[in-house]
Amino acid sequence: MASIDLLDSTLRDGAQGNGISFSVEDKLAVVQRLDELGVAAIEAGNPGSNPKDLEFFRRVQSRPLRHAQLAAFGPTRRKDTPEEEDPGLRALLAAGTETVVLFGKAWRLHVTEVLHTTEEENLRMIEGSCRFFTSRGRRVFFDAEHFFDGYRADPAFALRALEAAARGGACCLVLCDTNGGAFPQEAYAVTKAVVEQFPAVTIGVHFHNDGGMAVANSICGVEAGAKHVQGTYLGFGERCGNANLSAIIPNLQIKRGIRCIPEENLRLLTRTAAQIAELANVPLPDGMPYVGASAFAHKAGMHADGVLKLSGSFEHVDPAAVGNTRRFLLSEMAGRSVLLHKIHGMFPELTRGSPEVDAVLRALKEEEGQGYQFEGADASFELLVRRALGRYRPFFELIHYHILSSRPSEPECGASATVKVSVGGRVQLMAAEGNGPVNALDSALRRALEVFYPCLSAARLIDYKVRVLDGNAATAARVRVLITSTDGRRIWTTVGVSSDVVAASWLALCDSVEYLLLKQAG
Amino acid sequence: MASIDLLDSTLRDGAQGNGISFSVEDKLAVVQRLDELGVAAIEAGNPGSNPKDLEFFRRVQSRPLRHAQLAAFGPTRRKDTPEEEDPGLRALLAAGTETVVLFGKAWRLHVTEVLHTTEEENLRMIEGSCRFFTSRGRRVFFDAEHFFDGYRADPAFALRALEAAARGGACCLVLCDTNGGAFPQEAYAVTKAVVEQFPAVTIGVHFHNDGGMAVANSICGVEAGAKHVQGTYLGFGERCGNANLSAIIPNLQIKRGIRCIPEENLRLLTRTAAQIAELANVPLPDGMPYVGASAFAHKAGMHADGVLKLSGSFEHVDPAAVGNTRRFLLSEMAGRSVLLHKIHGMFPELTRGSPEVDAVLRALKEEEGQGYQFEGADASFELLVRRALGRYRPFFELIHYHILSSRPSEPECGASATVKVSVGGRVQLMAAEGNGPVNALDSALRRALEVFYPCLSAARLIDYKVRVLDGNAATAARVRVLITSTDGRRIWTTVGVSSDVVAASWLALCDSVEYLLLKQAG
Repeated sequence: MASIDLLDSTLRDGAQGNGISFSVEDKLAVVQRLDELGVAAIEAGNPGSNPKDLEFFRRVQSRPLRHAQLAAFGPTRRKDTPEEEDPGLRALLAAGTETVVLFGKAWRLHVTEVLHTTEEENLRMIEGSCRFFTSRGRRVFFDAEHFFDGYRADPAFALRALEAAARGGACCLVLCDTNGGAFPQEAYAVTKAVVEQFPAVTIGVHFHNDGGMAVANSICGVEAGAKHVQGTYLGFGERCGNANLSAIIPNLQIKRGIRCIPEENLRLLTRTAAQIAELANVPLPDGMPYVGASAFAHKAGMHADGVLKLSGSFEHVDPAAVGNTRRFLLSEMAGRSVLLHKIHGMFPELTRGSPEVDAVLRALKEEEGQGYQFEGADASFELLVRRALGRYRPFFELIHYHILSSRPSEPECGASATVKVSVGGRVQLMAAEGNGPVNALDSALRRALEVFYPCLSAARLIDYKVRVLDGNAATAARVRVLITSTDGRRIWTTVGVSSDVVAASWLALCDSVEYLLLKQAG
Repeated sequence: MASIDLLDSTLRDGAQGNGISFSVEDKLAVVQRLDELGVAAIEAGNPGSNPKDLEFFRRVQSRPLRHAQLAAFGPTRRKDTPEEEDPGLRALLAAGTETVVLFGKAWRLHVTEVLHTTEEENLRMIEGSCRFFTSRGRRVFFDAEHFFDGYRADPAFALRALEAAARGGACCLVLCDTNGGAFPQEAYAVTKAVVEQFPAVTIGVHFHNDGGMAVANSICGVEAGAKHVQGTYLGFGERCGNANLSAIIPNLQIKRGIRCIPEENLRLLTRTAAQIAELANVPLPDGMPYVGASAFAHKAGMHADGVLKLSGSFEHVDPAAVGNTRRFLLSEMAGRSVLLHKIHGMFPELTRGSPEVDAVLRALKEEEGQGYQFEGADASFELLVRRALGRYRPFFELIHYHILSSRPSEPECGASATVKVSVGGRVQLMAAEGNGPVNALDSALRRALEVFYPCLSAARLIDYKVRVLDGNAATAARVRVLITSTDGRRIWTTVGVSSDVVAASWLALCDSVEYLLLKQAG
């Protein structure tokens, strides 16, 4: 099977997108997801321009990856500066990655008008910077910035930049459409010319989406002989974004038989999309090719009928091949097979025909109508199923909570909470302070319940996310809170929805505690 | 200048998108926008499948259009049914449009497995239905459904369907990629073959975006000789949507010199996008090519520097050409030149050498270290600059707020807040309830300040976003709150950061109020 290598730049070029900002923890989690998916390389930061990235590269070294090589990204050296003294190259070296992605100029206009230097110095900058790393045993990918614009203006100039990188030992020459305006037939023709010119080196492509054609241009680049494709998993990136790998992978692998990731991982495509969107705290667009919630959603009556008669009739691929599911909008059939699959996992005796399944379906629809989403919240989903089936007994009952939040306040004690709970007829009242209302409530609830359930002392929350569901209702908007907890062995996620952020957090906190107690009880 | 005709199907195929629903009033308004933009044809409904559309077609007749022809859409007649007795054709006729778009089958699989009829009857259905309208003086476009799949399976079968439509008098044969899985080179090759086969008829293309390549496929179709392109202005449509005309138009007209709309209307592209998104009640994605708010937004320091030196260096077209504007995002990656550019815009007397600029830089770095991000929050950034320069006088002072939040609670009144503020030595205490602590605080603050500043009654919040900065600190994590406000004329965004979501919201609310009062004061 033919194959290509992918480089995912969600953490570098993707972080240039408006509103995208990753913490070091987020970056580590994204690296893990992309590694599990099986991309060849992960471009994880620009240590020279962003000091936060240095901490990331230090921490990531203790986490071995299974598939991917980690890469750091930065410019060729400054003009008229020895490589050894260039702060950018030194920062890249310090990042300690096996692979280094160096970008340099391939458009005469940029060399003369932005760098203000000569072509000769530009070529020395490229060759010398590449050699700085290859002579130290690092693998170098050379990103030829503005290659398509540069080639359009002066093909020989653009090709000389690639030659300099090849002389410096770069093992991959990447043709970048930095301004994002290239056309598919042009992407094909230019890539083909370069592939013929450099038969011994891997040629890569890197497209931006300013013309809305980054996916297609990448495909045309591969059809012309490129063996390396750069993009970002969800298309995040500056301006209109980068080539969206979650579409490129199935386009190439399912439809053209060109392997991009291990075959058995294709079904992780949809789940990975949801996970990365969640980590980036952006909603995954419904209509994203292959991985969006509506990518296989049928609304027109005639299309739904057609699909029921013959699934290929209105679907370009089988949704299961990418881990997605078919949906019929405004219909009772939505998601039933996934649901059955999940319920069957919990209670193997329940099958397609069981009337209990209808009860779960009704409960699920009702909660989804309120804004719940269980995709990232398996623990809450399990509790929902048990409640709907009548197979659930609550471990405690809330009598009330009261929270007082003030400003000005003592440091770290902006809020205090009292919680009154009842367990098996015994009532417990507890108070706690915190640096905000949710933190105070969390502490008070745990302290009250630990009296009855000492095992709770091992549990702690490790993630807290807030998503505003309908921003234009402003501070009266509904919010969805996701809480991830651990007891040192398990990790589980719960969800709560309310127009009150404290109430939504309360619901997710309660589910978190209930889930642990359920698992402890057997 | 070469030219092509566009058919916009926002009101027909676009309405199949998840969450898209137009009232008759909405449809009339969209028709007006598209007509002003200057598309050749507007496919506005399917009268046979949607009775609501009949009212629309009746009402639209009293509104003469300047550029566009209105079209109604429907299937060829049912099998074994005389045209005169077919309810679908009669509904189309009753719609009274000069142009009729008829769709029919061009894929053998669909004829045998979905229609359950013979090829001969399918060809009679196509030819007879076309002639039904052309013999009554209507113009017919024939949409050959699943043309690309059908051609891949059996080219001769697919071409015979087109021939039947041509015999029936159709003036435009449209190759539809109904399942949305076509590739650009295939789009080119198939379109080229058809154009050569039918030199006397206009060939059109209609792509869906299931592979993420609908725009590119449309461009390739035009490069192969298609003179008619169907799509939806913002890419709305079933599953992953239709080809996005707001990208196709500038791609063809600005970069290839192929006229799609009157030249002077190119600058309406961005405004039309905002208007149609508003009518459809969906947010316009920031990163939409050409027309999105971030389509020309620069974040990387090096890119911003480059654009300031030479605008073409990181922009594929001039944003003004499509009525959009350049933006510089402030972030940890933005360089000093972006900052200077923004400060200079506020205070033209401050330049690169001014010592005041260093004070702003220090203040900015300190706030960013706390988790502030001014990327989307221009109003808070302006306040920060003024405070750092000592050019700011606060409009009010908080003495304290107290919030009480309880559960169980009355519906929509989970929290109450009291706010005590001082304005010019006068103290005002006010209380309010809300469905959560932030909502209650917002109401109490506004009510207290309206006593002094009646202009605040015109302001309201239109968006509220919460971002947890360091999720693994769980409920003690810092959160960043972004609030967008309007007074009906301006829109501005402010930001607050704290480990207490209420306190972070408070900071963003205060900035929102301060900013409006500053602008009102001149």
